[in-house]
Amino acid sequence: MKIGFIGLGQMGSAMAANLIKAGHEVTVFNRSAQKARALVEQGARAAANIAEACHGQAVITMLADDNAVADSVWAHDGVIANLPKGSIHVSMSTISPALSTRLSSAHAQSAQRYLAAPVFGRPEMAAAAKLFIVTAGDPATAEICKPLFEAMGQRTIAIGTDPAAANLVKLSGNFLIASAIEALGEAIALVGKGGVDKRAYVELLTSTIFPAPSYKIYGGLIAEGKFEPAAFAAPLGHKDIRLTMAAAETLQVPMPIASLLHDRFLRLFAQGGERLDWAAIGGLANQDAGGQITA
Amino acid sequence: MKIGFIGLGQMGSAMAANLIKAGHEVTVFNRSAQKARALVEQGARAAANIAEACHGQAVITMLADDNAVADSVWAHDGVIANLPKGSIHVSMSTISPALSTRLSSAHAQSAQRYLAAPVFGRPEMAAAAKLFIVTAGDPATAEICKPLFEAMGQRTIAIGTDPAAANLVKLSGNFLIASAIEALGEAIALVGKGGVDKRAYVELLTSTIFPAPSYKIYGGLIAEGKFEPAAFAAPLGHKDIRLTMAAAETLQVPMPIASLLHDRFLRLFAQGGERLDWAAIGGLANQDAGGQITA
Amino acid sequence: MKIGFIGLGQMGSAMAANLIKAGHEVTVFNRSAQKARALVEQGARAAANIAEACHGQAVITMLADDNAVADSVWAHDGVIANLPKGSIHVSMSTISPALSTRLSSAHAQSAQRYLAAPVFGRPEMAAAAKLFIVTAGDPATAEICKPLFEAMGQRTIAIGTDPAAANLVKLSGNFLIASAIEALGEAIALVGKGGVDKRAYVELLTSTIFPAPSYKIYGGLIAEGKFEPAAFAAPLGHKDIRLTMAAAETLQVPMPIASLLHDRFLRLFAQGGERLDWAAIGGLANQDAGGQITA
Amino acid sequence: MKIGFIGLGQMGSAMAANLIKAGHEVTVFNRSAQKARALVEQGARAAANIAEACHGQAVITMLADDNAVADSVWAHDGVIANLPKGSIHVSMSTISPALSTRLSSAHAQSAQRYLAAPVFGRPEMAAAAKLFIVTAGDPATAEICKPLFEAMGQRTIAIGTDPAAANLVKLSGNFLIASAIEALGEAIALVGKGGVDKRAYVELLTSTIFPAPSYKIYGGLIAEGKFEPAAFAAPLGHKDIRLTMAAAETLQVPMPIASLLHDRFLRLFAQGGERLDWAAIGGLANQDAGGQITA
Repeated sequence: MKIGFIGLGQMGSAMAANLIKAGHEVTVFNRSAQKARALVEQGARAAANIAEACHGQAVITMLADDNAVADSVWAHDGVIANLPKGSIHVSMSTISPALSTRLSSAHAQSAQRYLAAPVFGRPEMAAAAKLFIVTAGDPATAEICKPLFEAMGQRTIAIGTDPAAANLVKLSGNFLIASAIEALGEAIALVGKGGVDKRAYVELLTSTIFPAPSYKIYGGLIAEGKFEPAAFAAPLGHKDIRLTMAAAETLQVPMPIASLLHDRFLRLFAQGGERLDWAAIGGLANQDAGGQITA
Repeated sequence: MKIGFIGLGQMGSAMAANLIKAGHEVTVFNRSAQKARALVEQGARAAANIAEACHGQAVITMLADDNAVADSVWAHDGVIANLPKGSIHVSMSTISPALSTRLSSAHAQSAQRYLAAPVFGRPEMAAAAKLFIVTAGDPATAEICKPLFEAMGQRTIAIGTDPAAANLVKLSGNFLIASAIEALGEAIALVGKGGVDKRAYVELLTSTIFPAPSYKIYGGLIAEGKFEPAAFAAPLGHKDIRLTMAAAETLQVPMPIASLLHDRFLRLFAQGGERLDWAAIGGLANQDAGGQITA
Repeated sequence: MKIGFIGLGQMGSAMAANLIKAGHEVTVFNRSAQKARALVEQGARAAANIAEACHGQAVITMLADDNAVADSVWAHDGVIANLPKGSIHVSMSTISPALSTRLSSAHAQSAQRYLAAPVFGRPEMAAAAKLFIVTAGDPATAEICKPLFEAMGQRTIAIGTDPAAANLVKLSGNFLIASAIEALGEAIALVGKGGVDKRAYVELLTSTIFPAPSYKIYGGLIAEGKFEPAAFAAPLGHKDIRLTMAAAETLQVPMPIASLLHDRFLRLFAQGGERLDWAAIGGLANQDAGGQITA
Repeated sequence: MKIGFIGLGQMGSAMAANLIKAGHEVTVFNRSAQKARALVEQGARAAANIAEACHGQAVITMLADDNAVADSVWAHDGVIANLPKGSIHVSMSTISPALSTRLSSAHAQSAQRYLAAPVFGRPEMAAAAKLFIVTAGDPATAEICKPLFEAMGQRTIAIGTDPAAANLVKLSGNFLIASAIEALGEAIALVGKGGVDKRAYVELLTSTIFPAPSYKIYGGLIAEGKFEPAAFAAPLGHKDIRLTMAAAETLQVPMPIASLLHDRFLRLFAQGGERLDWAAIGGLANQDAGGQITA
């Protein structure tokens, strides 16, 4: 397929590379142009602006937050203004369900198509084409994008026809991961202070009752007390918890663990922890117990 | 091996049955004698009292709580008074680390051996000999018990020589499961109120980022809103959270999610929910959101 | 003084009436004009629009929230466009510190003056000219407004020269009141379920260790379980907690009780409690204990 | 009246001194005898053991916790064994409602009388005979003790005939004070980081919406960041929160602020804060915000 790809961060670069590898004709765009270079070497075309990335059957956005996506879409030379009628905007960023709904309406009004397709997975999973992709929107549109998703992920799961649903599911998933980080942080602080070897404990947990990647990755980081370099920086994690809480407020759903996580992030930042991986909130329980966040 | 088995609840009965099946010579005891009948049919000998269950190389206790274990051990005709010198008390109940330490000392003083070997797994896992067994204590003693553990579990993991460590690990594991229940409850309340199908959501989660039995079992129960019959009753779950909090208090480790869980259980009980599975605390978020605990 | 008064809700109407009573020349404006009638009978002049309320030495705004204030100030025919140079905008609404800072800059650029002067007190205190007024800004400006504050309040306290400080103090005060409501709710649920008469309990508390109006008023409402009619509606209370949390997020100050209050309000609203007094969050602990929010 | 007084800590010594001053014939006892000396100089008789303090119309216990009271009462030479028939045990310590109920039964079985009469007030209030005394039990018994209470307190309030009620009320009162400490801690951390002078802030609050001694005393300590010397040490405060939580568990009343306070105390102790005043938990919010507990 002939497609555009906007947003070449750690995740986006890896995803675009896999699209190229799979034979798609990819035009990439990033605000700071040097990030496009490596991809051009792999076969991408570099767009000078957003408009140039909108000439194909689909354009994928993989950007940092709601503002970045809204800017790219509604700017004078943005996606709405340039995407051909009938072409598809595949929104893969972690954004608010509310923005997803607005995007869906706006594209419909411009006779364009919109598909929400946020992803689960850290940069190394993106690089290995092992992402999980959650889609919501028109099934026919999702069908067209199938080869793209197969190039980037290990599995694609449709969760309904309301695009906002996919974004809500994505946020709730990150909430669940952050909850597991906090719970692991408390458990590891407890057994550690009780004299149990932290690494052996995580190995025990993840080879028995919690054989899930999240528990392995984050349990390991917490047991090591090693939160740098960040694969997913704490401010991004905080952003997702805030979006979760905003959605929960709109829907009137109290979420006490989300509230706890929000306070954990603020505390981490008040100590200068913005550069750490979001797993670092799992070190605060150890600090509460009289120890350190990092080993 | 010639062994005794004290405590024939849902878990204990299944475990004893597997020991018999593996060829061990098992003398069973339970306070209400009729529970022994089915096992006698399978080949067990029924003891008239605790003393009669203490004549072998090892005696296993699998009882409801600290009090039940302490009663069995220190009663006039209890384990301490009757277990032969050199024989092993294998304590598999979920008890406090503090009691485990006291048991270890008491048996040492009586020239008996003690091994802490709590288990992870619900009744159906016990029946299938799929338990995870966490041991702590003297390695030689653990080695002797190996055939017993192989008959009951899918995996045995040693976590050190201090028996209390195994009990602390067991409690922390139940804390982690309860934390996952609460987090799932909040997430499912959120996406459900947002229009997402709850069962499809749990299927999505557990086939992607959380491929762990706890998430499948408890996510499923919460999505269904079905908490009866109880495989692990809420008061037992609450007991474990209280033991976790007691250990955390002794070690001076604040655990905010444990505190939240404690309040969740009290709220469930104040509504008459004692008979429900502990997964029912995962229905309280839905009640907070204006819905019901049960479907 | 010749002044304007914008915003004639329960609070504003009472405040404006006291200004008239004290002999000030007051021009009043409210979006729905009928609220001005009673004040006109008491001697006010009714403005047809915001501009007409801006012709004096000062204009007071007493509006529902940030949006209402921003609209009044920056509208085409708003305060900024019409207030004479040197005249004062006295902002008495409960707004965010961030908006107060923006207002201060905007007025300075228009050669107007700005004073933040939020108030503590419920409608009956406003009617009795018993408000507490917290001011922040230029001391000379505050001095000019002194006769106005004396007509409306029992005490005026300056808290510095940065206008945002007064708004932060006001929000923090409402946070403290809401915290007292929640704590009273928990305590009253406890002693009530323990067989103590709830009204006698509140009488005991407020005649001994907590002789403060907040404890009397809110303790009384919770003991009675009577939250209608609302003197300060729950959505307004929630708004203030959200503004507090927003300020806390900007300043990176984790506030766990604020988080708890936020979740309490969401839960109240999910049950249809928007019409109740904000004291109704103090009834949720009783609901948690198996009882009802309202008696 | 001829009375005994058992327990001469900071509070008990001051209370006993006021009883002597009021003309009562007081026999004092304390485990470490030197504490009795100052009171003997003021006119007390020193008892060599508990039995000698039990020969009057009433004996008052003012001890540290449940264990100390139970030991004094049920010891071989304790209160139950020595108090004359018809004489009164006035229990003024902060103890659990459950122990109060047990004491009431035990004294009734021994044909003695029992009155629960816990107090509110810090040592300086005890010295000034300004305590608030909450009584529960037989009204005729309370009437007999009236002159004693008048010598020690500024006000005596009866809260029913079930002795446990007074103890529950006392615990709930300390819970409310601790809640105010936590809320003040969060509010002061917020406004302080926002640039407001902390002392001026507390002065503002306590001269307007919170004119209550608790807010003045604890707000002042938190604003100063000065928690030594302790008038009421943190471990005693923690004990009261634990007793509150135990009563709440028995009554099935979830108390989320109590849970938060429990975790706050554990965190304070994990940092070595046992010697500080319980107001120090109000410094943890400042630590969360990147500052220090103490100034």
